Amino acid sequence: MLNAVGREIPEELGMPYKGEMLQPSGRAAGHLIKAARPHEKKVLSGIKEAIIKSGLKDGMTISFHHHLREGDYLVNMVLAAIDELGIRDLKLAPSSLNNCHEPVIEYIKKGVITSIETSGLRGSLAREVSGGILKKPVIIRSHGGRPRAIESGELHIDVAFIGAPCADTYGNLNGVDGPSAFGAMGYAMVDARHADCVIAITDNLKKYPIQPISIPATLVDYVVCVDSIGNPEGIMSGATRFTRSPRELLIAELASRVIINSGVFEDGFSMQMGSGGATLAVIRYLSNAMKKRNIKASYGLGGITGPYVQLLEEGLVERFLDVQCFDLRAVESLKNDRNHIEIDASYYANPFNKGCAVNNLDVVILSALEVDTDFNVNVITGSDGTIMGASGGHSDAAYGARLTIITTPLMRGRLPIVVDRVQTVITPGSSIDVVVTERGIAVNPKNKGMEERLKDAGLPICSIEELKHRAEKITGKPDPVQFGDRIVGIVEYRDGSIIDVIRNVID
Amino acid sequence: MLNAVGREIPEELGMPYKGEMLQPSGRAAGHLIKAARPHEKKVLSGIKEAIIKSGLKDGMTISFHHHLREGDYLVNMVLAAIDELGIRDLKLAPSSLNNCHEPVIEYIKKGVITSIETSGLRGSLAREVSGGILKKPVIIRSHGGRPRAIESGELHIDVAFIGAPCADTYGNLNGVDGPSAFGAMGYAMVDARHADCVIAITDNLKKYPIQPISIPATLVDYVVCVDSIGNPEGIMSGATRFTRSPRELLIAELASRVIINSGVFEDGFSMQMGSGGATLAVIRYLSNAMKKRNIKASYGLGGITGPYVQLLEEGLVERFLDVQCFDLRAVESLKNDRNHIEIDASYYANPFNKGCAVNNLDVVILSALEVDTDFNVNVITGSDGTIMGASGGHSDAAYGARLTIITTPLMRGRLPIVVDRVQTVITPGSSIDVVVTERGIAVNPKNKGMEERLKDAGLPICSIEELKHRAEKITGKPDPVQFGDRIVGIVEYRDGSIIDVIRNVID
Repeated sequence: MLNAVGREIPEELGMPYKGEMLQPSGRAAGHLIKAARPHEKKVLSGIKEAIIKSGLKDGMTISFHHHLREGDYLVNMVLAAIDELGIRDLKLAPSSLNNCHEPVIEYIKKGVITSIETSGLRGSLAREVSGGILKKPVIIRSHGGRPRAIESGELHIDVAFIGAPCADTYGNLNGVDGPSAFGAMGYAMVDARHADCVIAITDNLKKYPIQPISIPATLVDYVVCVDSIGNPEGIMSGATRFTRSPRELLIAELASRVIINSGVFEDGFSMQMGSGGATLAVIRYLSNAMKKRNIKASYGLGGITGPYVQLLEEGLVERFLDVQCFDLRAVESLKNDRNHIEIDASYYANPFNKGCAVNNLDVVILSALEVDTDFNVNVITGSDGTIMGASGGHSDAAYGARLTIITTPLMRGRLPIVVDRVQTVITPGSSIDVVVTERGIAVNPKNKGMEERLKDAGLPICSIEELKHRAEKITGKPDPVQFGDRIVGIVEYRDGSIIDVIRNVID
Repeated sequence: MLNAVGREIPEELGMPYKGEMLQPSGRAAGHLIKAARPHEKKVLSGIKEAIIKSGLKDGMTISFHHHLREGDYLVNMVLAAIDELGIRDLKLAPSSLNNCHEPVIEYIKKGVITSIETSGLRGSLAREVSGGILKKPVIIRSHGGRPRAIESGELHIDVAFIGAPCADTYGNLNGVDGPSAFGAMGYAMVDARHADCVIAITDNLKKYPIQPISIPATLVDYVVCVDSIGNPEGIMSGATRFTRSPRELLIAELASRVIINSGVFEDGFSMQMGSGGATLAVIRYLSNAMKKRNIKASYGLGGITGPYVQLLEEGLVERFLDVQCFDLRAVESLKNDRNHIEIDASYYANPFNKGCAVNNLDVVILSALEVDTDFNVNVITGSDGTIMGASGGHSDAAYGARLTIITTPLMRGRLPIVVDRVQTVITPGSSIDVVVTERGIAVNPKNKGMEERLKDAGLPICSIEELKHRAEKITGKPDPVQFGDRIVGIVEYRDGSIIDVIRNVID
């Protein structure tokens, strides 16, 4: 059966993507009700004791969050302890996985981990999963889809492990203090609310109560203190610098001109900006235009970076809603500036609550590994067909924003980025308004009037087919990737329907 | 059947109080899952439109919160609209009710309200309920018992009405900005998480997103703007001044000497103080002792008052955990001081979560309408047997604290306060350590060693029977109140078991 973006979804996998957002029904899964006696102690001797007390057993589901990014010690540390305790057949359900999680491969081989649900996978772990190391397909969810799945009970977490840069002895947690400070705890906040058992792991134990409290003690069962929860250099790996690449600067300039001339660039507009070099350059161009026209943004959303923070400090943006910080300047801002507000992943992007933050976006700038002539975007699989990225908030922000802009070079290496058909659809073309490349800008025909507006502004508009043609003229048509028949990944759309599957790559 | 405090609880009413805290099992009731489309509007034209959109129907349950205290306009305003819409047979389930809610009597007579669940009732409404105006008994819950009941599903809220001193157009709410600022929104936060429909009513509508966010837009269905949600004078009716009564000052001095000599008065101790005149005097005595001995408290809990705030400002208390502010100085402090932390009622006192704040209390000072020779405390019914107070956080804090002190005059008017048997048990004697009156201090024999310590400190210790004797010597033994056979109130203990019932008073 073909779903609404023309992908064949085997019936037994679940509801195929319909093109329209599904409507939810019923009630959320209730959390396990527990009681704590007065003056009980929650601090345990170590991770193993906490795992034993949690009641973790074969076949259960464990969760982590990826705010420590490439510096994360937690996943490997906890899996080592679980392995030593002889627990097997676990589902690993972190908010995302990074290159530093290569050791997970060994735990898969040992049978400790037998399935994975995540926003993304990188490095050798991603390659192994693409090759079929797991018996069950990995489930890929967006940052809004994950809280939806957790709240509905689709993803039930037995034990959540939360890395806490600051924890007190009773389990209040925050991410802004201590040697491993990473800032907003947005993804972990959802796990804490719903997991049967919550184990906080910290390298900065304080007396009760700390401030601020991002995750309250009422949700935390145990606290464990370790030497370090993360490598500060890796934690801040999301940090990026302004690009000096002429191509990226050109894309950024074009993208900012698209925003300025789109019709949504007016006082009080809202925006989400990512962390790529081109996006940071967009921020710079845009802030100049805002000053010139005396326009202020009502709020900025998304993973927050230092250059983005500067807009807040200059009063060009009134508030930040922050689910994840990408650098130390963002962490400091979250800690000290009341207009920089920490939010959880459900607040950020869950389509099934009473109103998430992406719903009010005017503009979002997103990247792409591939875009196709139906404007579908791939941010998960590389040109060789293997998993190498993450769904992230891509489809969430794209759905919510009035104006969704994809910025991408037309080619990478000798490969075209605008293609007939993306390897994997993360975000359906119906959510995309404009694709900006260094060699032309394509407007989705569904966005009536936008093409004229941008043409009138002198922007180099062409059709998406023309972009594809321009790319292929230089790169040629690459040989198609040879996929096998095995499904190694299922891509859930944010509403839980299946927008695509990822098949194994044949070497 | 007699429960653990010797009260006869008819079997059909539910589980009688066992003396030991019940242990919970199972899962919380899940919230209703809804979806919001991007750029949808939540602001409606008025309360009636919101009620209609909420789907409120005969037989449902509506909730309110009592942070606006004697200034609250919401209950009366909403009930008027409901009445006009012809909706009947509702359960009214606010966190508490005050004198200003006298109009509820009319809505009971009209059949709009047919049952009530609350922490307390005052004034003529309380007298009518005591007289039997409701067919079903009112259910009295503590501030910790209410979130327990809501989370478990025992109290299911169909529509929650939340008075918001500051709301944005998408339903983010806070209590610290605007003409009706009342401070912490602790009770309403629980309703917002669990009610099927949440209607925010504000007199201070702002654009999205406000800061701080106490209740997030993800939980709010509709926003209604009205001229005023409360009378500022009434809102701050919790505010009190230092007492000049020699009797209250004496009680306060004795109470502070009890704390100082109790063994828990050491650096890092924690405390909950109420808002009565005597308690404010305790704060003053205690702060002098803290300065003298260089002792600092780790946190202060409970409804927060200006004199209490002074301790935070002077650095004598490191943090406040605030579920409810009692005066403007507390509101200002919550707004501006990061060490003044807003908490919800579940965090404050729910016995069935992973660790509420009362669990870490060292000292609490509580008041009493009556204490009996088993140390049971009544704070709900007056000397004439009618309802006139509220359960509040009394039994919650008393259970959690290492040292629970009751301060009370030995007599009020010509009536003894220490008696053989309190009219109504709110807090079982097992939670009480010391009763301080102006004519002697009684220590609960269960607290071994405390009596000796306080005697050694030169405090005027006697038995609780002796206190009763001293009172009766002056007042005589009052005639017993004549109760009827009808049960007009059920007092739930914080774990949901029934600690007492209130019978109708025969005039």
